[in-house]
Amino acid sequence: MDSLAQRTSKSVVLHERPAGIPQSEHFRLVDRSLTEPGKGELLCQNLYLSLDPFIRARLNAGPSYADPVKIGSVVPGLTASRVILSNSDQYRPGDIVVGMGGWQEYVTITATEVRKAGVDPLPLTTALGVLGMPGLTAYVGLLDMGCPEPGTTVVVSAAAGSVGSVVGQIAKMRRCRAVGIVGSAEKRQFVLDLGFDACIDYSKTDNLADDLQVCCPDGIDVYFDNVGGDTFGAVATLLNLRSRIVLCGMISNLNSDRIQNIQDLRPLFVKRTQLRPILVSDHFHRYDEFLGSAKAWVQEGHLRYRENIVRGLEQSASAFRAALTGHAIGKQIVEIAASFNRSPERLR
Amino acid sequence: MDSLAQRTSKSVVLHERPAGIPQSEHFRLVDRSLTEPGKGELLCQNLYLSLDPFIRARLNAGPSYADPVKIGSVVPGLTASRVILSNSDQYRPGDIVVGMGGWQEYVTITATEVRKAGVDPLPLTTALGVLGMPGLTAYVGLLDMGCPEPGTTVVVSAAAGSVGSVVGQIAKMRRCRAVGIVGSAEKRQFVLDLGFDACIDYSKTDNLADDLQVCCPDGIDVYFDNVGGDTFGAVATLLNLRSRIVLCGMISNLNSDRIQNIQDLRPLFVKRTQLRPILVSDHFHRYDEFLGSAKAWVQEGHLRYRENIVRGLEQSASAFRAALTGHAIGKQIVEIAASFNRSPERLR
Repeated sequence: MDSLAQRTSKSVVLHERPAGIPQSEHFRLVDRSLTEPGKGELLCQNLYLSLDPFIRARLNAGPSYADPVKIGSVVPGLTASRVILSNSDQYRPGDIVVGMGGWQEYVTITATEVRKAGVDPLPLTTALGVLGMPGLTAYVGLLDMGCPEPGTTVVVSAAAGSVGSVVGQIAKMRRCRAVGIVGSAEKRQFVLDLGFDACIDYSKTDNLADDLQVCCPDGIDVYFDNVGGDTFGAVATLLNLRSRIVLCGMISNLNSDRIQNIQDLRPLFVKRTQLRPILVSDHFHRYDEFLGSAKAWVQEGHLRYRENIVRGLEQSASAFRAALTGHAIGKQIVEIAASFNRSPERLR
Repeated sequence: MDSLAQRTSKSVVLHERPAGIPQSEHFRLVDRSLTEPGKGELLCQNLYLSLDPFIRARLNAGPSYADPVKIGSVVPGLTASRVILSNSDQYRPGDIVVGMGGWQEYVTITATEVRKAGVDPLPLTTALGVLGMPGLTAYVGLLDMGCPEPGTTVVVSAAAGSVGSVVGQIAKMRRCRAVGIVGSAEKRQFVLDLGFDACIDYSKTDNLADDLQVCCPDGIDVYFDNVGGDTFGAVATLLNLRSRIVLCGMISNLNSDRIQNIQDLRPLFVKRTQLRPILVSDHFHRYDEFLGSAKAWVQEGHLRYRENIVRGLEQSASAFRAALTGHAIGKQIVEIAASFNRSPERLR
């Protein structure tokens, strides 16, 4: 029987800090020894890895809402994982959990840092997307920060993304007008298929403000901003009195040296528009409440989603690039190991 | 007995739209006929005129929270006024009211647009300053938007002004650390005399961020921004988690063509700092509540103020310039007519 220390886990580590969009050379695929789980810890096999924009922020050296990833360390990421060994009363081998398993085959993790998943008929991957962190972000961000009233207008950027697509669909359930902004014709069609009232493909427009005005005849009450940058100015001209801007993500900023700013604060002041940043980790205690609603919405067809699943840990870097550059539609997920079509790997 | 139409009122009208700080040539002193008050209206004699920054905003042609003043129209402004003729059951001749009486000797105004004042031992001018709109702005802005908790740090710019000085003193009453930012040594001393814990004279510092760090050893929880502009960057480096920026005034912006912006939104996002504009007219229904507290604070010496009273309507333009350029300390007020040292002028 092999000892754990003799077994290895394929892992993707940060080799060099990227400027802009990360490329393959910024990462290395290495073999790392497994660590025996201590008291209260689990050894888990990662099944699915979620590629979320927050990962990009953590590759930077500068200050962010979490410490930067060290050179040579495993790239972080949310995973759906199977418990292999448990030194916790809370979990047994075979249990499925979601946690920060990282870009690797196996992870040793504290039991209190994961949550149980995969106990319902929905695919396990939904625990990383529509029923996972992106879904919770959209739910708390729109409802708590955006405070959308029935009959008002909600505009969301990156509307085809895993957060934006949920924002628009919850807005529709709240009887709001939902208007998306996306970067391709294909995404626009996807967003309209989800039931948004209107969607603008900014790659096809010369004047976003004009197009927004057509799509928002009664002005904008909530702007859910997933990208930052150039959309602020266009949105600002249409803001209604006491409107809200939910700041989420800032993908376009995290990838570049271009500083994210607001060109002109006056419209916010004139309309008393509040600016409200959301970081989902402040709201993890709301997860059960969210799931209580969101599972039913998915099963009843009110909340739809698309996932883009690629196979193999070695695909992580290119799949991440596709997610960041907007070439993928839907939640970008890497299948590291199949979930239910084989029995848990035996390690000893 | 003269008819009202034969009587005139000296009035300051807008002659030309200013760019930057208004000069004398932008205004004209003219004689205007008095208007007979209609049903529900009052004819009032203006006693004191308050010179507030919002007036500057209304001299611009561009969009603001109120319509721009037309060329040839009386310059707007809050006044403490004496009722001369009343066609309203609510007021009698001799009553003192506060309302938008404008830069003129007499005004015909709707009774529902004024409020009663001057019925307590405090000087009538306080109804335009510490117990008036600036005081209410500070009160609602700090307490409702800033939400200062005991032991946290409140930074306020234009701290010697009629809003800023009240913000800092209420912060002290709430057991916060109050730190001011001002533009002269004299103002700094005034602010320290009011009981602020620290005050920075930005005209004397090479590095506002460094000075702020010294004055705010536990970071910044509330930034009450009365000036906008260059202070944002310095404040941003010291923001605590879930801090609040109250946007008030933007004096520096209203005077110039320079667009008010935030150079870098990332610190707000990293700290989940909310940006909350306040416009006092949204909160006039809170006036009685505010006055209930503020009168006692003034009488008990917890809330101190300074007023700078100049005599004569023809001084309005230069006094306004002094207020906007920061050459005056305290609430800038023009005495148009003396209040209690002569009986109401008889008009018929």
